[in-house]
Amino acid sequence: MNADPQRPSALERARTRTARLEGLSDGVFAIALTVLVLEIALPPAAGRHLLHAVLELWGAYLAYLTSFLTIGLVWIAHHTIAGALSRTDGAMMRINLLLLMLVSFLPFPTKLMGDYIRTPGAERVAVLFYGVWLLLISITIAGMWRYAAGGRRLLTPDVPQDEIDTLTRMLEPDLGFYAGAILLAVIVPQAGAALFLVIAVTALIRRR
Amino acid sequence: MNADPQRPSALERARTRTARLEGLSDGVFAIALTVLVLEIALPPAAGRHLLHAVLELWGAYLAYLTSFLTIGLVWIAHHTIAGALSRTDGAMMRINLLLLMLVSFLPFPTKLMGDYIRTPGAERVAVLFYGVWLLLISITIAGMWRYAAGGRRLLTPDVPQDEIDTLTRMLEPDLGFYAGAILLAVIVPQAGAALFLVIAVTALIRRR
Amino acid sequence: MNADPQRPSALERARTRTARLEGLSDGVFAIALTVLVLEIALPPAAGRHLLHAVLELWGAYLAYLTSFLTIGLVWIAHHTIAGALSRTDGAMMRINLLLLMLVSFLPFPTKLMGDYIRTPGAERVAVLFYGVWLLLISITIAGMWRYAAGGRRLLTPDVPQDEIDTLTRMLEPDLGFYAGAILLAVIVPQAGAALFLVIAVTALIRRR
Amino acid sequence: MNADPQRPSALERARTRTARLEGLSDGVFAIALTVLVLEIALPPAAGRHLLHAVLELWGAYLAYLTSFLTIGLVWIAHHTIAGALSRTDGAMMRINLLLLMLVSFLPFPTKLMGDYIRTPGAERVAVLFYGVWLLLISITIAGMWRYAAGGRRLLTPDVPQDEIDTLTRMLEPDLGFYAGAILLAVIVPQAGAALFLVIAVTALIRRR
Repeated sequence: MNADPQRPSALERARTRTARLEGLSDGVFAIALTVLVLEIALPPAAGRHLLHAVLELWGAYLAYLTSFLTIGLVWIAHHTIAGALSRTDGAMMRINLLLLMLVSFLPFPTKLMGDYIRTPGAERVAVLFYGVWLLLISITIAGMWRYAAGGRRLLTPDVPQDEIDTLTRMLEPDLGFYAGAILLAVIVPQAGAALFLVIAVTALIRRR
Repeated sequence: MNADPQRPSALERARTRTARLEGLSDGVFAIALTVLVLEIALPPAAGRHLLHAVLELWGAYLAYLTSFLTIGLVWIAHHTIAGALSRTDGAMMRINLLLLMLVSFLPFPTKLMGDYIRTPGAERVAVLFYGVWLLLISITIAGMWRYAAGGRRLLTPDVPQDEIDTLTRMLEPDLGFYAGAILLAVIVPQAGAALFLVIAVTALIRRR
Repeated sequence: MNADPQRPSALERARTRTARLEGLSDGVFAIALTVLVLEIALPPAAGRHLLHAVLELWGAYLAYLTSFLTIGLVWIAHHTIAGALSRTDGAMMRINLLLLMLVSFLPFPTKLMGDYIRTPGAERVAVLFYGVWLLLISITIAGMWRYAAGGRRLLTPDVPQDEIDTLTRMLEPDLGFYAGAILLAVIVPQAGAALFLVIAVTALIRRR
Repeated sequence: MNADPQRPSALERARTRTARLEGLSDGVFAIALTVLVLEIALPPAAGRHLLHAVLELWGAYLAYLTSFLTIGLVWIAHHTIAGALSRTDGAMMRINLLLLMLVSFLPFPTKLMGDYIRTPGAERVAVLFYGVWLLLISITIAGMWRYAAGGRRLLTPDVPQDEIDTLTRMLEPDLGFYAGAILLAVIVPQAGAALFLVIAVTALIRRR
C-alpha cells in the first residue's frame, strides 16, 4: 500500500507524462485553426454588390491564411518536439501553457490585421501587432525546443545529435525572418503583411 | 546513445505516424461541424413575428444541413483513408493541412449562402462561392486518396485491390456531380443550392 | 499482399471500429457544451444598470442550464451505449451523425428560447421549438440504443439482459416527459420551459 | 453469454472508467481556453485611433489572462486528480459535470468584467460576478479532490499519504485567497480584479 521509493508515484507519473502535454495542446491547436473563420464577416449592406464586398475582404483572407499556416507549423513543430521527449517537467508545462496562450489569442491580432490593413493610419498598428505576435509565438516554440534539448534535458536517449541540430536549424531562423518582416512593416505595412505569409509558406516547404 | 541506422529515429517516427494526421484532423472536423450553428442568427426585430422570422431562415438551414453532411462525409472518407495507411509523409501532411484549411473555412461560404440565397443579384455569387468551395474540398479528398493509393505508396499491405478501387469509385464521381451543380447554379442559383444538398444526401446513402 | 478472406480487411475494420464513433462524437459533445455560452449577450446599453441587466437574462441562464445538462446526459448515454458495442455498422454511423447534428444545432433553439422567453407573442414559438428539439434528441438516442440492442445486433456478448433492460428503461421514459412538457408549453410557455429543466435534473439524478 | 458475477459487466466498466471522465473534460478545457478570445472586440469606430483603442481594452486583456491561467490551473489539477484515481462513480461524474459547467460558463463573466471594469457604477457588479465565479470553480475542484481522496474512496492504492496531503494543501488555500480578493473587490473593484490575476500567477508558480 506504500509507494516504492524506487519508482515514481501515481502523482509523479501524472506530472511527467508527455501525453498530458499533447492532449490539451492538440485540442487548442485544432480549435484555434477552426475559430479563425468566425472572425471574418461581411459589412451589413454587402448584399447589393456581393462580389465586390467578398473581394474587398482580401485583407481578412490574407490574415486567415497566414494564421492558419502558422498554427499548422506550430502544431507540426510541437508534435515533433513532443515525439522526442521522454518526460516533461514543471518548466516545460509552463512554457507549453505560454505557447497555448499565445496561439489561442492569435485570432484577435488576426482579426485586427484583417479589418484594418486597408485603413490609412490604422494599418501600421494592426500589422505590427500581428507581426509581433507571430514573433512571440516563434520565440516560444524555439525556446521550448532549446529547453528540452539543452543538455538533452528531457529527450529520449535514441534521438541522434544531428536530428537535434536539424530541428534547431528549422525553428530558429524564423526569428530573424519575423524580425525583418516587422521592420519592413514599420515602413510599408502591407508589404510586411505579405512577407508574414511568405515566411509561413516557405517554412512549410522547408519542413519535412 | 546513437540511433540504429536500421530503424527510424524518434523524430522520423514522429514524422511518419498516421496518428499525427488523425488527431488534429478529428478535432478540426468536430469543431467545424459544431461552429456552423453559430453563424445562424435572427434579425434584431424578429420577436414580433417570431415564427415567420424562424421560417424565413430556410436558406440558412439548407446551407447548415448541406455543410454538416458534407463535413460528415469528409470525416468518414478521411477515417477510411487513414485506416488504410501504414505511414504518412511530408506531401500527405501538406495535402491534409490543405484539406483542414478548406473544411475549417467552410463556415464562411455557408453563412454567405445562407444569408444571401434570397437576395436578388447576390444569390448567384453566394451559391457559386459555396459550390466552388465544396468542389475544392471534394477534389482535395479525392487527391489525398490518389496520392496515398497511387502505386500503393502509403498503404498497409493487406488492403486488397478491389477495396482500393471501391474507395476510388466512391470519392471521384462527386467531382462530376459538383461541377454539374455549379453549372446549374449559374443559371438557377436556388436549384443549384438544392442540388448540393441532394449530392451530400446521396453520397451518405451510397457510402457504407 | 492479398487479404485473408477469413478476417476483415483494413477498410472493413476501419468501417466497424467503435472508436470511430466515439472520437468525433466526444469532440462534438465537448464543443456543443462549450459554445452554448457564446450565445449569451447583454444588450448594448447594459452598463447603466448592470446588475439589473444581468438578472434580466434569467431566460438565457435557464436555457443554458437545461441545454448543458441535456448534452451532458446525452454524452453519458452515448458513452454507455458505445461501451456496450462490439462493432458498429453503416446504419449506426448514420444514426450517430443524425444525433450529432441535432446536438450541435441545439445552441440555436437555446438562444431562441433564452432571447424570447419573456417576449409576449414570441415566447410560445421559442419554447416549443426548443422543446421539440429536445424531444428529437431524446428520440434519436433511444432509437440508437434500440437499434444496437435489438436482437443484440451490435452488442458485446458479455452484456447481461438485465443491463440491456435497465438502459432501455433509462432512455425511453424521457420521451413521454418531453411530450408532456411540450403540451404544457403550448398553454403556459414559461412553465413548459421550467419543466424541461426539471426533466434534465431528474434524469441526472436517476442515472448512475 | 451470461455475465460473470465476479467481474464487472461491460456497462459497469463503462460507468467506472476514468477515461470517460478525462476525454470530455480535456475537450471542454481546451475549448474554453480557446473561445475566450472570441469575446474580445474593438468598438466599431476604432480605426481612427487604433493604438488608443487597442490599449483601452486592457480590462479585456486582464480578464482574458486571468481566465486563461485559471482554466490552465484547473486543467493541471484535474489531470493530477484523474491520474490518482483507480475508478470513478456516479457522484464523481456529477461533480465533474458541475466543474465543466462552471468552467465553460466562465467566458461570460470574463467578458462582463472585461467590458465593464472601467464603467463607473457597473464595475463592482462585473468584478464581483467574476470573482464569485472563480471561487465557485475553486470550491468545486477542491471538493472533487476531497470526495476522491476522502478515505481513499476512489484512489489507486499506490498514492502515498504525503502526496495526498500535498495536493490538498495545493488546492484548498485558493479558497481563502479568492474570498479575500472578493472582499477587496467590494471596496476597490479594480484592485480586486488585479488580485485575481495575482492569485492565478502565484498558484502557477507554486504548482509543480
